[in-house]
Amino acid sequence: MLHRRNPQLNANGELIHLLSIEGLPQAVLTQILDTASTFLSVNDREVKKVPLLRGKSVFNLFFENSTRTRTTFEIAAKRLSADVINLDIAKSSASKGESLLDTIANLSAMHADMFVVRHSESGAPHLIAQHCAPHVHVVNAGDGRHAHPTQGLLDMYTIRHFKRDFTQLSVAVVGDIVHSRVARSDIHGLSILGVPDIRAVGPKTLVPSDLREMGVRVCHDMAEGIRGADVIIMLRLQNERMSGALLPSASEFYKSYGLTPHKLALASPDAIVMHPGPINRGVEIDSTVADGRQSVILPQVTFGIAVRMAVMSTIAGNAA
Amino acid sequence: MLHRRNPQLNANGELIHLLSIEGLPQAVLTQILDTASTFLSVNDREVKKVPLLRGKSVFNLFFENSTRTRTTFEIAAKRLSADVINLDIAKSSASKGESLLDTIANLSAMHADMFVVRHSESGAPHLIAQHCAPHVHVVNAGDGRHAHPTQGLLDMYTIRHFKRDFTQLSVAVVGDIVHSRVARSDIHGLSILGVPDIRAVGPKTLVPSDLREMGVRVCHDMAEGIRGADVIIMLRLQNERMSGALLPSASEFYKSYGLTPHKLALASPDAIVMHPGPINRGVEIDSTVADGRQSVILPQVTFGIAVRMAVMSTIAGNAA
Amino acid sequence: MLHRRNPQLNANGELIHLLSIEGLPQAVLTQILDTASTFLSVNDREVKKVPLLRGKSVFNLFFENSTRTRTTFEIAAKRLSADVINLDIAKSSASKGESLLDTIANLSAMHADMFVVRHSESGAPHLIAQHCAPHVHVVNAGDGRHAHPTQGLLDMYTIRHFKRDFTQLSVAVVGDIVHSRVARSDIHGLSILGVPDIRAVGPKTLVPSDLREMGVRVCHDMAEGIRGADVIIMLRLQNERMSGALLPSASEFYKSYGLTPHKLALASPDAIVMHPGPINRGVEIDSTVADGRQSVILPQVTFGIAVRMAVMSTIAGNAA
Repeated sequence: MLHRRNPQLNANGELIHLLSIEGLPQAVLTQILDTASTFLSVNDREVKKVPLLRGKSVFNLFFENSTRTRTTFEIAAKRLSADVINLDIAKSSASKGESLLDTIANLSAMHADMFVVRHSESGAPHLIAQHCAPHVHVVNAGDGRHAHPTQGLLDMYTIRHFKRDFTQLSVAVVGDIVHSRVARSDIHGLSILGVPDIRAVGPKTLVPSDLREMGVRVCHDMAEGIRGADVIIMLRLQNERMSGALLPSASEFYKSYGLTPHKLALASPDAIVMHPGPINRGVEIDSTVADGRQSVILPQVTFGIAVRMAVMSTIAGNAA
Repeated sequence: MLHRRNPQLNANGELIHLLSIEGLPQAVLTQILDTASTFLSVNDREVKKVPLLRGKSVFNLFFENSTRTRTTFEIAAKRLSADVINLDIAKSSASKGESLLDTIANLSAMHADMFVVRHSESGAPHLIAQHCAPHVHVVNAGDGRHAHPTQGLLDMYTIRHFKRDFTQLSVAVVGDIVHSRVARSDIHGLSILGVPDIRAVGPKTLVPSDLREMGVRVCHDMAEGIRGADVIIMLRLQNERMSGALLPSASEFYKSYGLTPHKLALASPDAIVMHPGPINRGVEIDSTVADGRQSVILPQVTFGIAVRMAVMSTIAGNAA
Repeated sequence: MLHRRNPQLNANGELIHLLSIEGLPQAVLTQILDTASTFLSVNDREVKKVPLLRGKSVFNLFFENSTRTRTTFEIAAKRLSADVINLDIAKSSASKGESLLDTIANLSAMHADMFVVRHSESGAPHLIAQHCAPHVHVVNAGDGRHAHPTQGLLDMYTIRHFKRDFTQLSVAVVGDIVHSRVARSDIHGLSILGVPDIRAVGPKTLVPSDLREMGVRVCHDMAEGIRGADVIIMLRLQNERMSGALLPSASEFYKSYGLTPHKLALASPDAIVMHPGPINRGVEIDSTVADGRQSVILPQVTFGIAVRMAVMSTIAGNAA
């Protein structure tokens, strides 16, 4: 594995696809965050467009439905002046029995420049990146339980915006970690950016124990998990992903791991509270906290557009 | 109620949202109609675009499906050079249990500039306007039985185009008035613009009697209702909205209230016939009339694009 | 029939709609292929847009769902700088009982410039072209079993690209010809462009015998049908279109008519293999052939964008 080049980087070490945060050099992450910062001001301008992707065709390939995520990519691409084509793949060729790779080969032949891929199977974006034409760039918009790298990057952006220095932080990731591609991407990002104290907090059934090998502290007790934390990342309880009875009930989960003002008081007084959304009020987070002064959930959304613009313009500018 | 400022107007009395025609000053209505008139020529030009909303993000939030209305807003926004994002909300976050206001807060955080909202609940666009970020403008594209203000305005535009002076007119609104947000918006518009003789025509079960308090003449007899009228606005029979047996049958309705050449002959000889579409031929209107020389149903559609361009460019230009 | 002008041509013989290849002059076909050739270089450029349809509104009216075909038209229109409105008609007005012609009249009144129409009923695009406003141009994107003229033209483009001269060729169209609008359009195109040897190859139940009247050689034996052919056009086995037991089974079809390397060896050594996609690997075509050196299936897709750009810009430039 050591000798194989990271498939996301070209021979010069430049990012050509964004498939996973895992394995990316710190410099690449930092460059994306710096670029995103320049786009934040674009989004505040009267005319929010820049011509960086003018004439480029960006295809949103959502094999798994997600209006919210698709929308953020669509906005980001349009603000870069790209032409955006939304394909609801679930309803189309797939139903005619065409294989994933045949679909991709066809879309590449239409001179696509970028595929933004959401898929229920882990690894699908990698497969696509391996097989698509060399002029096409791939962004993973969430694959199975594997990764959601743009969410991870926007979380890193948010933390840097509010906390500046990664190297002094305690960050707690709380909830259903085992099913969460967001948690996975966040932990890789935090680790690469030098966060010394990363905690994974949740019940035994929802926190994979092998996280310890990544230098993560696993806490099954919420109080222990968030005590003194500078950043608390609450995860969405993925009801729709859970099969079987891993959890007793939503209300029991809330009692143990839901973020209430009472529990939040255990964290650092200026701790920030994050959540990838959409939030389940009263399940993983109390409304007082979600809407409170420490919540940065809406800034996350704003930063998410800028980060996606940064990712798309960065990879589009680097040749395979 | 008298002391509270109309939530559609800023401190200078300028329109910042379009939620309802009710309560708007005549000058605001007239200004929109005048602006629409300048856009009509744009729509006839070889290149139909003007850059008034360039770089603005317009979100079509259709909580209730309506391809036709969404299309008119999409065209209007694109001709103003806006970026348009269509969200089929019914299928997305709502199904993940996110509240309306959380959805709106999230979309605002993406630096949306305008929400075009269709919702089955009366008042939903008001609620959104109250809670969205100050930089966001809201257009009601139809809410429950409450209002459909852009349809009302395009109807006013059509009447002014063909009849010039509102202050001499007899206007009959015919059909299922109780379920019609179009009728409600039309009656407010006609009233504000000074139409002296407004008639609501239909069976007792479909005409609310409290219209009399608004100065509207209620007629349950069709002949009486359209005799001498200068403008006849036929309403769509909202079969899909009617619960229970308010009507004996479509054919019986047609016999009493369907607009046939015979009945139309009772109106002023140069009366115009309007309909918000889509028409039910042979239910509320006879094909001969719908396609006849007095019908202005298709001009209504054309004017509708210009009026929506006028509404969007007007509110986008006024700061909260 | 001889005296009636082809409804696709204006009084100067210029193309104003593309409804069917049948009956078009050779010069019109050649001009489209020549124009497409200029757009191919556009698609390779860094900025892929040309301003030929700037400010024009192109409506994709898909009464029958087809994400793939809709996408190719959407890309082509956007690369010509048009505003594209996708209407999923099946879900909208139709369900409110509006007639096809009322829908068309309404969209025309919105100052549409072009309708791209896919419909399950043969003749629907003709009907629309007859009834829409004179400023609107219609492109048939596939109607029933009748025609798929842009697919036909892109097939002609592909053949010309690889074989240069139509007048020396043997072309075999293989498979389910009776249900295929592609086959019908291809055969008309080949015939107009002067191909001397056109063969329709397939089982008796799937090849209409009246093709002989068009000068086509009907072959029920695969070996005979493709022997010495310069071009082999494989058709998709339209499982979803077949009612009843016209075929014993997919595997039996493959045995007799599936294109394997063994059968391909009977054709000319430099024969090209075409397929409109999506392909059914192992049903009508073997993977080795589909991915092999003689396959031009992906170039067809690339040429398809350029051909659609050529069709749209040609008809938009010709006044009714």
